[in-house]
Amino acid sequence: PSRLPGFATHQLGVAGAVLDESTGKVLVVQDRNKIYCKDFSSYPGDTAVREVFEETGIKSEFKSILSIRQQHEHPGAFGKSDMYIICRMEPSSFHISFCQHECLRCEWMDLEELVRTENTTPITSNVAKLLLYGYREGFDRIDITMREFPAVYTGLFYKLYHRELPESYKNMT
Amino acid sequence: PSRLPGFATHQLGVAGAVLDESTGKVLVVQDRNKIYCKDFSSYPGDTAVREVFEETGIKSEFKSILSIRQQHEHPGAFGKSDMYIICRMEPSSFHISFCQHECLRCEWMDLEELVRTENTTPITSNVAKLLLYGYREGFDRIDITMREFPAVYTGLFYKLYHRELPESYKNMT
Repeated sequence: PSRLPGFATHQLGVAGAVLDESTGKVLVVQDRNKIYCKDFSSYPGDTAVREVFEETGIKSEFKSILSIRQQHEHPGAFGKSDMYIICRMEPSSFHISFCQHECLRCEWMDLEELVRTENTTPITSNVAKLLLYGYREGFDRIDITMREFPAVYTGLFYKLYHRELPESYKNMT
Repeated sequence: PSRLPGFATHQLGVAGAVLDESTGKVLVVQDRNKIYCKDFSSYPGDTAVREVFEETGIKSEFKSILSIRQQHEHPGAFGKSDMYIICRMEPSSFHISFCQHECLRCEWMDLEELVRTENTTPITSNVAKLLLYGYREGFDRIDITMREFPAVYTGLFYKLYHRELPESYKNMT
């Protein structure tokens, strides 16, 4: 393998799936050019909070990672690859004031209605199904949780996202 | 928000956690400079298969995504962020022939021993615990599964990684 330093051939983006648990409504946005934002200069959660607010005016809190979406132009070839982290968000404000530059429409929509709607992408529909499953049967069924680790010697910080580990395994030494 | 096109401020890497289920041994590698490889020009699974083979000589098959590791130089600031997808791999060959350029040591190690070893990073230890949990109680407890979607109009392809969705939700329309 080459010893040359790696270079970035990818973009990493973040999207927020904002569900109001008190009403079962989810925030849907119709973007002008794309569904998700591409900025990602910090932690996915922080980025999702900022992007959701800038696009829709809704304040929200990061709950977990829900899904990772990968997009390819040329499957199996050398095409550029984009990845999006889809975060589960809980809103703390509900009045929509959306960015006209980025969005054509923005509204609260019944989650069940979004699952059953035909006028959407398979990705959106699948994410909606995940949210509905979690909403009905517990978010522990859908969440990808996070643990934080300091790196003592290097001064780096790590976050590790994975399925929840039982306490007995977490504390195993 | 800026209308300028996004640019990549990140690196995306892939690592393989190779577990031999017949012996309960896991492939451990001590890299010269880093633990994980940084190349990622295709699907994570394909990349993990290639990187594991190039580094260790072991042939393996991609099973699932196990974890996503995020690393920050300056937490909360504008530091560059690296992400690594850690894949669960099943070996189909067992003779190690490791790359001297990249690795100092490479061996099959008892998974339980790796969990209990103190001479390792918290990240490695946590990934080992995840693997042990799955090995003992079923990999469905740890796997992040994948669904593929064609994008009919654009000719793009998508992969979506998330928790397993029950059939009743998958087929909901």
